[in-house]
Amino acid sequence: MAASNEFDQLRVVLVAARNPLNIGAVARAMSNFGFRHLRVVNPYEAAFREARSAVGASALMSSAEEYKTVAEAVADCALVVGTTAVRHRELQHPLRRLEYGVRLLRRQLRSNRVALLFGSEKFGLSNAALSHCHWLMRIPTCEENISMNLGQAVAICLYELMRDSKAAAQREKVERATGGELERITTTLLEAMRASGYLDRRPIADVEERMRRLVRRLNLPARDAVVWLGILRQIVWKLRSGKSPVS
Amino acid sequence: MAASNEFDQLRVVLVAARNPLNIGAVARAMSNFGFRHLRVVNPYEAAFREARSAVGASALMSSAEEYKTVAEAVADCALVVGTTAVRHRELQHPLRRLEYGVRLLRRQLRSNRVALLFGSEKFGLSNAALSHCHWLMRIPTCEENISMNLGQAVAICLYELMRDSKAAAQREKVERATGGELERITTTLLEAMRASGYLDRRPIADVEERMRRLVRRLNLPARDAVVWLGILRQIVWKLRSGKSPVS
Repeated sequence: MAASNEFDQLRVVLVAARNPLNIGAVARAMSNFGFRHLRVVNPYEAAFREARSAVGASALMSSAEEYKTVAEAVADCALVVGTTAVRHRELQHPLRRLEYGVRLLRRQLRSNRVALLFGSEKFGLSNAALSHCHWLMRIPTCEENISMNLGQAVAICLYELMRDSKAAAQREKVERATGGELERITTTLLEAMRASGYLDRRPIADVEERMRRLVRRLNLPARDAVVWLGILRQIVWKLRSGKSPVS
Repeated sequence: MAASNEFDQLRVVLVAARNPLNIGAVARAMSNFGFRHLRVVNPYEAAFREARSAVGASALMSSAEEYKTVAEAVADCALVVGTTAVRHRELQHPLRRLEYGVRLLRRQLRSNRVALLFGSEKFGLSNAALSHCHWLMRIPTCEENISMNLGQAVAICLYELMRDSKAAAQREKVERATGGELERITTTLLEAMRASGYLDRRPIADVEERMRRLVRRLNLPARDAVVWLGILRQIVWKLRSGKSPVS
């Protein structure tokens, strides 16, 4: 994960967004992933600050900055990256897949302010807006439907920035049952099988070895082993007490 | 990228979703990333099929299946994975970060049908719904705001499934300017500097070497080198024609 002061170098810039719900959804995703600086160029709805869906992101919405032009919105940014759904437009820009583009972008965030531009829901970024960009990124969607919802597109880009493949590989600490516990379960299970008459009706060759392997394939956590042993013991106790089990 | 028939093994299951707009947004994201099978358990709005925001996903919405219970919705799935925003709930389940969980999930998709569960916008998955899950995933959000919009959460999970770190590293094929082109630009630039009187007013030591390095730092694509050379030649021609440059 990038340090949060690196994330503070990012400006999310919405150009000509039409739907206040989308602006709110963008603010919410920014808040989810630790980005704080939203810029809005020429929004369709003047009342964009009232975007209602910005759950938990009202501070961010109220500090959002409004600009008349893209030029003004990116004037203090050393790198300007545009987003596009289009793959083969006559783009006069390098077009990078998100996974790779974000890698370059993160590198820049260490030392420079970066603007990440998103276009309107209907038309994306205009050629004029694109001309302010150093390069472009695209989210790897299917050819059949490349057009993403604005709030979802922003959320995915910010997730990719926050993503940490190393943290992902953290080992889980689940205490496994010991060999001794598994053997007690096996023994008690065998007892239950005998006491219930299961083995009389369905004799099994090498039954002990088979059941031992069956129990080990359960791959039991330690705390579950205790529960299973308790259940089996109670069953054996009930079976041995002479009453027939409820069928 | 997983083969599309692997993606066909995934069932996206929305449990008690309240907002048809969100159901539509989920369908749209599924369509963007090549997933086709949506299941809805006990949706808040009976008219969920009319969810309007499913741009480009109407086929998917019309084939969505409705279930009364989670048990029925996952009955044919060999792996059931829940999603949660909560980190330290008294979860009786392994809780995995998305980056790692999806790795396990993709492995299962090769040979088994998998259900991926999302809870309601307000409460997430209930404990009863969670008890049907083999394990849980969480999206790595900030502690300050862990609650995500449903449509955005689903989009991010599906993006992570579609994500391809290897494709990301594709080299871009941009033809760079050759040494010869750069040298012609350098020479013409020096000519323009001399003809404009720049060097008389601001003499530069080792000017040729400095300008040569300056031009090479531009890291010009071949097609841009042609444009720059044309501009500079025109400027030199105008300067040599005797008229003073416009200041």
